[in-house]
Amino acid sequence: MIERIAILGTGLLGTSVGLALRAAGFRGSIAGWNRSREAAQTALAMGALDSVAADPVEAARESQVAVLAVPIYATLDLMEKLAGVLGPEHLVTDVGSTKRVISEAAARLYNTPERAAFLPGHPMAGKERGGAALADANLFRGAVWLFTDDPAARRSPQSAALVQGWREWVAAMGSKTLDLDPVRHDELVAWVSHLPQFVATALSALLEEEVGNAPELKDVGGRALREMTRLGASPYSMWRDIAHTNTEAVERALLALEQRLAYLRENLRTPVLREEFEQANRFRRE
Amino acid sequence: MIERIAILGTGLLGTSVGLALRAAGFRGSIAGWNRSREAAQTALAMGALDSVAADPVEAARESQVAVLAVPIYATLDLMEKLAGVLGPEHLVTDVGSTKRVISEAAARLYNTPERAAFLPGHPMAGKERGGAALADANLFRGAVWLFTDDPAARRSPQSAALVQGWREWVAAMGSKTLDLDPVRHDELVAWVSHLPQFVATALSALLEEEVGNAPELKDVGGRALREMTRLGASPYSMWRDIAHTNTEAVERALLALEQRLAYLRENLRTPVLREEFEQANRFRRE
Repeated sequence: MIERIAILGTGLLGTSVGLALRAAGFRGSIAGWNRSREAAQTALAMGALDSVAADPVEAARESQVAVLAVPIYATLDLMEKLAGVLGPEHLVTDVGSTKRVISEAAARLYNTPERAAFLPGHPMAGKERGGAALADANLFRGAVWLFTDDPAARRSPQSAALVQGWREWVAAMGSKTLDLDPVRHDELVAWVSHLPQFVATALSALLEEEVGNAPELKDVGGRALREMTRLGASPYSMWRDIAHTNTEAVERALLALEQRLAYLRENLRTPVLREEFEQANRFRRE
Repeated sequence: MIERIAILGTGLLGTSVGLALRAAGFRGSIAGWNRSREAAQTALAMGALDSVAADPVEAARESQVAVLAVPIYATLDLMEKLAGVLGPEHLVTDVGSTKRVISEAAARLYNTPERAAFLPGHPMAGKERGGAALADANLFRGAVWLFTDDPAARRSPQSAALVQGWREWVAAMGSKTLDLDPVRHDELVAWVSHLPQFVATALSALLEEEVGNAPELKDVGGRALREMTRLGASPYSMWRDIAHTNTEAVERALLALEQRLAYLRENLRTPVLREEFEQANRFRRE
């Protein structure tokens, strides 16, 4: 019953949503808007969209489901712009990496009888480099798509049907869904997503200082070094908003890792090193 | 002119050397010895060896080139045992991850007119799990194989020819070779190999504590988390010797990363974060 989708933001994730919807058999219309029209044209040329919209509010108004696929602060801006314009015949959802501030804005701006429903979402998928050109219809296959659903979003049969419909398309794109409380979501992703990113950034920045001027030495590290620094290519533009909207949980995770590294460093020649390897081995047991 | 090779230690690396030599067209004999005879039988069954030897000293004596493929302290033990038995018609080489202690032992025990030549080597290749069963003829393809050569190893035409012959087989296995001073080697690999390993160990151990009791939450991290913790599966048995024989360089690298993480943590909401991402991006520029 969802027949008109608007994708607002046609970077890697937004364009991949369009491609994945098509691959999953979505036959309705997909309009796309992007701040830089060039990226929207790329998404159109790749088959992720049917049309490029000039205005995000207009595109959302003409859709049943608007998918916000921009950084967190831009998502909050769009949420403000759309809230007064859309009505209960609309669902707005997003793909942002932190959910507390977005869920708070949703409770404030959406999910009342005369307003649109809002379903905060977070697909755990991405690449270290962004942009429509790297989009992939299979990006969400096998990934977990988190939701921090609010029952108020399902207050009417119409809204409940839109929420259920979007969840079914997410499953059709190949993702497993998992529902979390927004604060628990942000704490969890601080450990399993944001911490790995900031470690890769710190490690890459440090190594650029130590061996960056000798490219032949980068090759020496091989696959292990490539994997441990792949996320070093991630763009600041996206991660700034994450750092700003999940600061305390990320600080706690970083501090815990600093302490763990110091503990390991102080025990390179004691039996504690064995315990640390065994504890790490347990995390990777199959 | 190398026709008889002995591989002492038929774990992942030793067995892969046998397979890679065969794939590169080596038609001579390959004898293998392993402390646990079972692993040597696996290597034999996989085609990495022609025969399993009962005694490492005897196997080395019957070879022209003995490849030591055991952890560092076991390598030092074998170097002691072989030094008095082998003569200038032999070359001994190794694949150990630290080179200072091995190069010192080589200078003390080898490379004199009446003794065998010793060429310290270190292929930058491996897997997070060891064992003959995971060996791979292509493990060294595209990898860098480091040497911390001592001119004394090439003091006679006979020794020089063996050294040259082994280097040619290393190239035939698909590796690029790079020569380094042993102290510089250990400092470099502390940054590009040992630091990434210990970071993955600390991150995996920490995450086991935080989310290890909720397996569904591990899936949430996706590819990024899998890559950043893959080396968490690495065995203590191998890394203990590395931690013991490259302690100071690893301590320096770990301390530098702790400080970098703290700097990043203190600047999650300042413009410094942009600089850190840009510095990391430079390390990953293509």
